[in-house]
Parts: sequence; structure tokens; C-alpha cells
Amino acid sequence: MNEKNKSFVRTVSLTRPSLQDNTADADRLVSVLKSELQTDTVKIDFPLLKRLPDLLRKWEYHVRCVLVPCPNGGEWLLTGITDAQDTKPVTGLAVDLGTTRVVLRLLDLSTGQALAESSFDNPQISVGPDILARIHYADTEEGLEKISHLITDGINHEMAALCKSCELGPENVFLLSVAGNTAMTHLFMGLNPRWIIREPYIPVVNTPGMVKAGELGIQANPLARVIIFPNVGSYFGGDLIAGILFSGMNTAEDTAILVDVGTNAEVVLGNKHWLIACAGAAGPALEGGVTRMGMMAGPGVIDKITIHRDTHEFDIHTIEEMPPKGICGSGLIDLAAHLFLSGMIDIRGKFVSSVCGTRLNENNGIRQLVVTPAKDSATGNDLFISQIDIDSLIRSKAAMFTILETITMSVGMSLNELSTFYVAGTFGCFIDPKSAISIGMIPDLPVESYQPLGNSSLGGATLALTSAEALREIDEIRNRITYLELNVNQEFMNRFSAAKFLPHTNTSLFPSVEV
Amino acid sequence: MNEKNKSFVRTVSLTRPSLQDNTADADRLVSVLKSELQTDTVKIDFPLLKRLPDLLRKWEYHVRCVLVPCPNGGEWLLTGITDAQDTKPVTGLAVDLGTTRVVLRLLDLSTGQALAESSFDNPQISVGPDILARIHYADTEEGLEKISHLITDGINHEMAALCKSCELGPENVFLLSVAGNTAMTHLFMGLNPRWIIREPYIPVVNTPGMVKAGELGIQANPLARVIIFPNVGSYFGGDLIAGILFSGMNTAEDTAILVDVGTNAEVVLGNKHWLIACAGAAGPALEGGVTRMGMMAGPGVIDKITIHRDTHEFDIHTIEEMPPKGICGSGLIDLAAHLFLSGMIDIRGKFVSSVCGTRLNENNGIRQLVVTPAKDSATGNDLFISQIDIDSLIRSKAAMFTILETITMSVGMSLNELSTFYVAGTFGCFIDPKSAISIGMIPDLPVESYQPLGNSSLGGATLALTSAEALREIDEIRNRITYLELNVNQEFMNRFSAAKFLPHTNTSLFPSVEV
Repeated sequence: MNEKNKSFVRTVSLTRPSLQDNTADADRLVSVLKSELQTDTVKIDFPLLKRLPDLLRKWEYHVRCVLVPCPNGGEWLLTGITDAQDTKPVTGLAVDLGTTRVVLRLLDLSTGQALAESSFDNPQISVGPDILARIHYADTEEGLEKISHLITDGINHEMAALCKSCELGPENVFLLSVAGNTAMTHLFMGLNPRWIIREPYIPVVNTPGMVKAGELGIQANPLARVIIFPNVGSYFGGDLIAGILFSGMNTAEDTAILVDVGTNAEVVLGNKHWLIACAGAAGPALEGGVTRMGMMAGPGVIDKITIHRDTHEFDIHTIEEMPPKGICGSGLIDLAAHLFLSGMIDIRGKFVSSVCGTRLNENNGIRQLVVTPAKDSATGNDLFISQIDIDSLIRSKAAMFTILETITMSVGMSLNELSTFYVAGTFGCFIDPKSAISIGMIPDLPVESYQPLGNSSLGGATLALTSAEALREIDEIRNRITYLELNVNQEFMNRFSAAKFLPHTNTSLFPSVEV
Repeated sequence: MNEKNKSFVRTVSLTRPSLQDNTADADRLVSVLKSELQTDTVKIDFPLLKRLPDLLRKWEYHVRCVLVPCPNGGEWLLTGITDAQDTKPVTGLAVDLGTTRVVLRLLDLSTGQALAESSFDNPQISVGPDILARIHYADTEEGLEKISHLITDGINHEMAALCKSCELGPENVFLLSVAGNTAMTHLFMGLNPRWIIREPYIPVVNTPGMVKAGELGIQANPLARVIIFPNVGSYFGGDLIAGILFSGMNTAEDTAILVDVGTNAEVVLGNKHWLIACAGAAGPALEGGVTRMGMMAGPGVIDKITIHRDTHEFDIHTIEEMPPKGICGSGLIDLAAHLFLSGMIDIRGKFVSSVCGTRLNENNGIRQLVVTPAKDSATGNDLFISQIDIDSLIRSKAAMFTILETITMSVGMSLNELSTFYVAGTFGCFIDPKSAISIGMIPDLPVESYQPLGNSSLGGATLALTSAEALREIDEIRNRITYLELNVNQEFMNRFSAAKFLPHTNTSLFPSVEV
């Protein structure tokens, strides 16, 4: 399929009706679109059918058509039509439906080009900070309707603003795609997620496919459709399927691994032949939620640190180069790596007082190391990292490595056979693979194997709006995923224990790490 | 496909969710339905999806499902679900959308059995007696909306009454099928038919497929769908396609002909390999609209006449055996046939005074024959048939025969090669084939070749509700029909002239007719 054939917008010229060719208006248009799209079935949305004869005559049978491929099979649906001369873009909206943050990207459906992007806090936070609280809220009187409206209203509002910034209106949005985790997707669709959190954990739907925007309360073009990413179950959502799609690992010959670090670490391993996925608790320390000085990335947050091996001087970088006020996940990994490489912590992660020197002190019997002294910090206090923080990070990195090892071993491979290591999310964009390797969090692959994907959920949602092939792949990915239950048995615990050292008890796994 | 497989209603038991099988509710149901229907795609209507988890649990995963096969391809749509224990019938409504009369049949979708039937005058008569007047009305300010509402309101009203008579409500109607001519179908769908009557005569749509009842203003179950019969053009409507479907001629090896006599005579010739159709003005005299005493069938209307060959006594039968007040088409054909067979008219159709005797008189120079004397008639006046009436009937029958001859010759066949001669409409139920043969209106085939179809439009609409195979055939029939333009050239006129004799100038064509 060439690039042109991927677009959902087609400009066509019809032969004008004559006594020799008196096919109906609708069938005349459908016939041309069928041959244009090389498909057997093109349907016209009924409200559009009613207006078709006037529109075709007004535009002299030369029209621009918006077509949506139905997720199942080769059927296309005509949802919009404009004058062929109309230069106003026909747009689509890709939505990354995060639990915390929702990101929108407006696209020109003809070219696939992004026109604008914006994000907003998920307004459902007001009724519940986490997924569980929201699911419980949805189960109260009118709760489902309210929590569902919170997100659809939020998207409507932000979409309108985004359109306005491009001198467009929401009626110019003909297609949306939404990728979120299973619970967020349920709440967005107004589906009650109550059975997701109760044994045996049953979603309402795994493959929602495509729904009319109006049926979901989305105020785009009245005929717009919403493509909703499917899920594998309660634990593996559409955001991850979008991520796999965006990475392209599902079509590659070589085996790759994709890691999405959030509250859980979600891991997918596979290639064009097979895909296996698992999830495990590995994240908190990496998200910056555990250490006292840990925080989400933002101005003044430490994101990079190097420590001179001989002088033990700290070279600290903060976001927007503001005075330091805390540390984010990538900064913490850098810090731990350099503490280890400079000998300030040992292979168990314990502070080595002889090397740490005056930076090390003790508070309530807990040892802590000054990262930024009070005089240089934004808070006017010392910024510390404690032994507890480091222990916690080591447990997280050990959990992560053990999960990676377990899933890879489950298919009889070893980690060093992986061709590519995709890291999803903003975390992946900031992390320094060398540091993560140094502490043994990720395998010791050549640095170029590590590929940050950025917002892969949004990336996948974008692909769904610009390629029929991608749209077909979505369900294929879903159906191909084997979900691996992580059995926390003795063998797993043995691997976990071995991974709780820096970089690992088996240093041969990390030949590049030189202490 | 066995009978069971044809039904659109399926009762299924699902495996209950477990930790070993935690497929979502929707996908669990879809998976069972896919295997039940042996299809790749089953979609669930979104509003139903929202209620699915509660319904499945309430009914303990044992449910009766209403499924509609989409006209294109193997996709099915789930539009209704009830408790498997529910004994209330799940129904469908077949609609024969006549210009004059609308006929409804309520069916049990599980068994295909008719539950009730009723009919009403097309309320659009109030704004226009004929199609042309209605199309012009539809083109006035708000005219389309008004005339469209007239018919949908009429159907809603009658459907509700029909349901009530079966102790059901309109919400029990999950599927409708509508067969009407092209203009009536357009008005029903709210599509402007203005271009149908203007050169080059372009309908809005040839293949409307399936539309949500709500989008058409039909107040059945909120998720009900309406299957709308396609048309070939402005001249060959869905009612005729329904008729072909009902006759089954499109699947037979032998060639049959189907004749629908209305204002026009519409004729289809064909078999499982090909179908050819044409239409021509042949009807008025046969509809009873031309003779002074002619009328539509009804109590007191003469529908059968025999005339004794020797005594020339008239044996008159009226509908409901009431005193005669007029004559309908089938009666008129009987009358003409027996006048001819008894020698009261000659081969040109002219009264033979010596045979007619005292029944014959003259009025304003036009000869007329008393059919029922004043003393026996319901009107208190003599019921006459005039020479003009007979001349008109002969032109009609000649036109009919010429059309039949022309279409048959166009494929290199002769009329006596036809295996079956289907006659659609009420006309076909009452006509005596022997009489029609005697006047040379229809070919001299064995009487058993003639098969009255009754309301074949309603019959076809009924099939569409009870068999996926029939539904698939509809579009296939439409696409296979070749429309033959009747060129009224010298050759046609020659054949017409030859057919203007009783039974024909070439009497060898009618060996069974013995005068």
C-alpha cells in the first residue's frame, strides 16, 4: 500500500448522471470510492445520505470524502463530505487517556500531520485520585454517569480549544482514537467497571471497536466515530496495545522488549510471530514517589547527576536549570549509578562512610547523604538521599530486572538476545540507559538498543487515525498477546535476591559495568 | 443451512467467568454467537453493551439474542437480548409500502410464523393521490418532512395496534423490512425524490441497506433496524425485487416470468443465471379504472362471469355475493373472454349484434351491452359494458402480450418455453388464467404453469426477516437485473397490432382457445 492509499480522506470526481448512466447518487459515489479504496463495501452514514443529492450537485460531483475503515474486515464508512475545493483541513483527534493526565493531538487526516497538541489533568481526579477510588465512585448512585461526563466534558472542552487554536471547530473533527487503560476506557465509554476489580476480574468488553462520537457524548462532527483501543483484560489496557503498535515490534522479525514504567512495570516481549506480556510492581521508586526528596519531573527537579570517580564532586543538572528542589526517577537512577561507580555505595547499596566523607550523616539512626547542601537548594534545606531510599530503589530495580529476566526466560531466550529495548513514557525519554545498566536495572545491551518511545499511547492512537493497516493491526496485536502470570515462587525469589545487588551477583551479566 | 440456522433469534448459554477464563462479558457472548452463526464478526449495539454486564448476571449467562445479518457480507449485529426463559415472542414487522395501501405483517422472529396482519390506506393520499403529486409536494417548504412523517406515523400507529392485538408492545419489534416502489421508499426514508422525476431520473440511493429504526422515525425497539429493499432505478422498485425474492425465480434452473399488473405492467424474466426486466403501460383497463362500471375489488363487485355458449345466459358472481354494482379487473377479463367464446364479440372485439340480441343497445352512438339489468343491480341502473370499454381492454391486453413477447424474444426464447408464469398482486389471485388466455392476454401455457403470488412484496419482505440467505439474495437480485428499455419501434408496433385481435392474428399461438 502506498502512502496515498493510507489516507482516510479521498478527493474524487464522479461521472455526472445521464440517461445512459442513471445510477443513484449514493451508489454512484460508493462505486467510485470502492474502486479508490479497493474494497467491497462502502457504507454511507444515513444522515449524510439525506443531504447527498444536494451536496453532490452543489459541488458539481467533485468532492472530498472522509472515510473510516471499520475495525473488522474491509468495510469502510463514509462519515463526511466537503467540496473538493475546500482547503480547510479534515481532522482527527488522538487521545491518550491517562489516569492522571490526558493528552490530545489534533491531526490533519489528509496528510497525517499533527496540527496541535495539548494536555490536561484527568478531571476524574476530583472524585478519586486513583483507579480503585474511581471504580468505587462509579458504582454509587449516578456515579457512573457523573464520572463518565467528567472525562468526556474535559475532552470536549480541550478539543474545542485545540480546534480553535487552529482556526477550526469541533465539527471539523471526523474521527477520534482513544487509548487508555482498561478502567479509564470503561469510564470514558460509560461502561460500569465494577466487575473489573472483583474476582474473576471481568471487563464489560475487550474489543469495543468503533462507536459513534455522539453515543459517547463527544461533541465532534455529528457523524464522527471514535476508535477505542481494545484491552486484554483488566490488567493490560489499550494504552499498552497502542504502545506496541507505535513501537512496531509486532511486525519485526527480531525479538524486542517494551517496558512501560508506571505504578506497575508493564512488559511486552515479542516479534511478528508472537507477543507475551506481563506486569509487576516495580515502579514506585522509579516514579519518584518513594524517596523523601523524590518528585515528578518539573522545573528545579534534578534529572541528571554525575559524580567524579576520584574527587567525588557532584555535577547536578536540574530541569530548566533552576535551583534544585527534589529529584525525579531518572535523576535517582543516575545518582544511584554514580554513587555505586564512585564507590560511595557498595554492591549491596550500603553507604561506604570512608568514601562518602562529610556528605554522610545520620538522622534518627538512619544514614543519609547530602546531595545538595542547603545553601544551593531551592528549599533552603539540605536535599538528602537516605539508606532507606536507596534500599527501596534497589528493590524496585531488582523487581524490574527479575521481571525482564522471567519473561525472557519463559520463552527460552536470554536478555542479551534482544534486538531492541523500547522504553515507553516520559520516564523512558529522560533515563540514561548507561546509569540504568550500571545499577543492573536493565540488561547490559549496547546503548543503541535502547529506544525511548515517548508517549507511545498517543503515538499508537495517532497511527490508528492515519493508516487502515495500523487499524487492522490493533485487534491482531490484542488477539496475539499471551499474558504471563508472574508466579512469585521460590525460583522468582531466588532471581530477585540475586538482582538485589549492584549491578547483580552475577557480574558476567553486566560486562560493561566497571567499578 | 438447516431451518434452525436461519432464525435471527438464538438462545445461548455462556460459560461463566472464572479466573481461568476472564474474557470480558461482551467478548464472551460474541465468541459463542460467532460459533453459533458460523461468522467472523458479531457486533453489539453500543447502548446494549452498556447494559450487558447486568443483564448477563441477572439472567445467569443464559440468554436469548436477537441478531441481524448486515446486508453486506457476513457481519451480524446483536440488537436485543432477553432472559432465555422469556416466552414473549421476539418479533419483526414486514411492510408492503404501497402507494395506495400499506400492509403490515407481524412475525415471530424465532419461528418465522406470522402473528397478525393488517393494512391501512397510505396517509400520503391526503397530500397527493398519485406518486407524481407526492413528489412535487415533497419539494415544497417542509413538504418532505411532512409527507415522510405521514407514512412513518401511519406505520407507527398501525404497528402499535398490531402489537397490542398480540399482547405485545412496539418495543418487542426488533427488525423491520420495507418493500415499496422507488418513490415511496424515498419518501419513507425522508430522502428527497425530486431528481427521480427529472431527466436523467436519478434516485438518491439504489441500495439503502439497513438503517436504525430511530433514524427513520420508526418507534419500534430503540435498537431495531429497518431493512430497506433496494431499487434498480426510478422505474423498478423494491416491491418488485421483493416479489422476485418471494417467487424464488432467481434461484431456479428453469426460466420463469413474473408479471405485476398495476398502473404499469412490470415484467421480470429469468432464472438463477440471469434476470431481465421491463415495464410498460398495460394496466389501466385491467385495474378496473377505465370502464365506466369498473372498480376495485370489494363487496358487490363482479369478479367472475361465465356466459353459456348456446343460451348466452350470464352467470355472474360478485364478491360476498352482494347485488352487483360494478366489475373488477378479473371480472372484466372473464367477461371479455366469455363474450368472445360465445361469439358475442368477434376477433376484433366488436359486438356481434345478431348474437348479443336485446342486451345490446346504443347510447350517443356508442354500442353497449347490458351485463346486469337495473332490476338485479345494486345501483338500480343497468350495468353496461361499452364498445369503448372493450376496445380499451383489448389495447391493454395487446400491450401486455406484446411486452411479454418482446422481453422473451429479447433473450431468444419463445413464450411457450417458460416453466412458470407468476402473477403478483391481488389481481393475480382472482384472475382466471383460462379467461386471460382466451383473450390472448397471457401465453397459452398449461394452466398449472400459472402461479398467483398474492402480495409478493409483503411475501418478500417477510422472507427478509426470516432468512439470512434471503437477505443476501436481495442485493444479488438487484445487481443481476438487466433493465430492458422497451423501444416502441415499428417491430414492436407490428407485434402490438397482431395482438389486438382475440386471441391473436396468429391463432397457432393459442391452440387451447376454441371458439
